[in-house]
Amino acid sequence: MDRIFQALADGTRRDMVERLVSGPASVSELAGSHSMTLQAVMQHLKVLEACGLVRTEKVGRVRTCAVQPDGLRLAEAWLSGRRTGWENRLDRLGELLEPDS
Amino acid sequence: MDRIFQALADGTRRDMVERLVSGPASVSELAGSHSMTLQAVMQHLKVLEACGLVRTEKVGRVRTCAVQPDGLRLAEAWLSGRRTGWENRLDRLGELLEPDS
Repeated sequence: MDRIFQALADGTRRDMVERLVSGPASVSELAGSHSMTLQAVMQHLKVLEACGLVRTEKVGRVRTCAVQPDGLRLAEAWLSGRRTGWENRLDRLGELLEPDS
Repeated sequence: MDRIFQALADGTRRDMVERLVSGPASVSELAGSHSMTLQAVMQHLKVLEACGLVRTEKVGRVRTCAVQPDGLRLAEAWLSGRRTGWENRLDRLGELLEPDS
């Protein structure tokens, strides 16, 4: 979980995830759509791959990247659990303050 | 957004958010429930406050901390948007592959 949130704490990596959500892409396609060097893209990909948000596969000379949704789901579930907990507490407070409503 | 994900990329800070979801707490209460020094708690609080996930207020000698839900909502919305995008793409792929279903 640390590594997922850490990977998402960078705007370029979030953009890369966003791009890959619309379909797999090669490393050069990712570099092109972000005006980055291949080396910079590879470094970000390494972070995204290490935490399981992205999977890459090399066929011949082309490395193709795809989003792995489980990491997104895990982080989303943590956040939505906390938000729900907070809303439930507000509801209980509301009931205590206005027992008739 | 960078700072929110960065703040959540630490297990202790996520635990502190989790604790504060169930209600406001003083710095010493937070320290006690995490077996941490006050100084360590203050450092984590600084990060959580800077990105807007937590608000602290000092009254007399006691600093009270409370969760600010907007940051959680923002991060959750980003993740759920990406997940939905991914699921929609899968649905479209499914329709392409099995047009009769």
